[in-house]
Amino acid sequence: MITQAHPLDLTRIRAEVEQTLEEFLAEKDKHAIAPALFTRLLRGFLVAGGKRTRPLLCCLGWLAAGGAGDITPVLPAAASLELFHACALIHDDIMDDSDTRRGNPALHQQAAICHPDHPHRHRHGINTAILIGDLAFGWSYELFHTTSNLPVDRIARAWSLLDIMRCETLKGQYLDLCHAGNPSADLLEALQIIEYKTAKYTIERPLQLGATLAGADSGLLASLSAYALPLGEAFQLRDDLLGVFGEPTITGKPVLDDLRDGKHTALLAIAYQRATPRQAAELRTLTGNPRLDQIGADQIRKIIIGTAANTTIEQMITDRVRSAKRALDAAALPLHVDNALRGFTAAAAIRSA
Amino acid sequence: MITQAHPLDLTRIRAEVEQTLEEFLAEKDKHAIAPALFTRLLRGFLVAGGKRTRPLLCCLGWLAAGGAGDITPVLPAAASLELFHACALIHDDIMDDSDTRRGNPALHQQAAICHPDHPHRHRHGINTAILIGDLAFGWSYELFHTTSNLPVDRIARAWSLLDIMRCETLKGQYLDLCHAGNPSADLLEALQIIEYKTAKYTIERPLQLGATLAGADSGLLASLSAYALPLGEAFQLRDDLLGVFGEPTITGKPVLDDLRDGKHTALLAIAYQRATPRQAAELRTLTGNPRLDQIGADQIRKIIIGTAANTTIEQMITDRVRSAKRALDAAALPLHVDNALRGFTAAAAIRSA
Repeated sequence: MITQAHPLDLTRIRAEVEQTLEEFLAEKDKHAIAPALFTRLLRGFLVAGGKRTRPLLCCLGWLAAGGAGDITPVLPAAASLELFHACALIHDDIMDDSDTRRGNPALHQQAAICHPDHPHRHRHGINTAILIGDLAFGWSYELFHTTSNLPVDRIARAWSLLDIMRCETLKGQYLDLCHAGNPSADLLEALQIIEYKTAKYTIERPLQLGATLAGADSGLLASLSAYALPLGEAFQLRDDLLGVFGEPTITGKPVLDDLRDGKHTALLAIAYQRATPRQAAELRTLTGNPRLDQIGADQIRKIIIGTAANTTIEQMITDRVRSAKRALDAAALPLHVDNALRGFTAAAAIRSA
Repeated sequence: MITQAHPLDLTRIRAEVEQTLEEFLAEKDKHAIAPALFTRLLRGFLVAGGKRTRPLLCCLGWLAAGGAGDITPVLPAAASLELFHACALIHDDIMDDSDTRRGNPALHQQAAICHPDHPHRHRHGINTAILIGDLAFGWSYELFHTTSNLPVDRIARAWSLLDIMRCETLKGQYLDLCHAGNPSADLLEALQIIEYKTAKYTIERPLQLGATLAGADSGLLASLSAYALPLGEAFQLRDDLLGVFGEPTITGKPVLDDLRDGKHTALLAIAYQRATPRQAAELRTLTGNPRLDQIGADQIRKIIIGTAANTTIEQMITDRVRSAKRALDAAALPLHVDNALRGFTAAAAIRSA
């Protein structure tokens, strides 16, 4: 076990991930087989933002498994997660018919803007974005495939893990689709969506991917799970709270979107469980209504506060953060990784944006 | 060079490809991470039909490059093309809003049928099908990745080729999208769509993929291109003719679809070039009209025949088939492969379905 005490430079890791992506895209530009518009929009999408959470965690997983101080060998895999994520977001925004992403128009909206003369501009924008998502998906494999100078058996295990991750993510998106517009009192269902769409996809699998490439044994992989799953739940529960009570100028996310979409969240599930028949009927009328206004949203907030669903969610976040920390205590990771993960834990669960 | 004179058993090759696919899907079912509905619909889609053209050509490419008589090592790569093709078709049908595929409802229609109670059934079907396409895409890489027992440098070259193929295919789909609904006199543009969407994707790259895995040199790859590109053009030109003049009971494809969609074909491009201003105006009114009826279609056929665009296309097919055969003469492939490709050439260019 490495016991470096000096803190990891996460900013530098993030920069290295971004450089890997940039070099990959520059290489693709040189051959220029894909339509120039695709590469331009995809690059813009990647540059526009994103906290690089998955690549960072992949690098931390690598370091957790003793992947020495040098993250170079894990960079293609880490950066490939960002390309896969681009596909997931692009296709997700099409499915949700979202207007904005990362402070810009959603990619299908941008593609529509690029074809001002097309007779069916909106539809053409969607179709173009389906293809750009496919391109990003293909390139994520392509970039992952450049992982080299590592033992073949580790790469093989990483492939299996990636396949599991993709299937889980698709399952999470599907569950989300099936329940969108129809929030209910089913808390377990809401938690299952969180498990697949966030906890596994955003935290657990990226950590395990990096660790696997560094040769982690099954014990370490299990420890990383024990940390990741509760933290991922806490992260998403916080997100759902911010989606209703957050300050849009800070979150950058229109506060009514989750409610207008009728997102099936744990927060609403608990509110439904405790609502009087009259409150439940009110919730049913108000949520999932694309024309919901501030007055309606205030009414929803009142019911949530009245049922104390929000304080229960706060308690669930606290419990899960505690579990995640306990898992870190038990894992005894290299000190610099342990520190970084504790910082990440705090930032994920206690935030206003 | 192998000079086996006995003919290749293409039916057996097709069966081996299908078995490879089936075993792959059975393995995925065992782990059951993806939603059961996804695997069921995808399997149904794969089983429902398809001539397995790309896998077959991949196997022929392998044999052309002297890949001995045993096609086992190339089967994962060959079958992976069918999974990629499933994604391309599923996403294509969404983009074109097609109702049927392989004699069944298009996959997004099937997915909609599976959710009879969903408040936005059609949209939910489309969203589900986007995800099933993504699943097939991911699994095509996954299956390709199981290619083993071959020299590492060949596999690396095959990866590059696959990436090129995917980018070209996306480019072809994009060109098609950009011109759909707006056929014009631009013949070069129509031929470029054919080059990317059919000639490279369906014929050239699958042949080269198999050949690359068998260690083909650049000379053989060039010979395969010289055969594939004109043949691919002939194949699609025939398809476009059948799309207007074919017998729907034989082609299995509603004869009005291409005309209703306003597909930008070489056939219409030539008709436009030669049309009188009055005929051109008529074509513009009739094509791309979703309510086009048999009387309108007959009027289009009359203009095409009047401008002799159809006989020019027949001549173009003849010329291209001749080029393809000349390329085969020059390539001096192993006799059994040469025979199979000559049979394929005839079937692709001279057919009624």
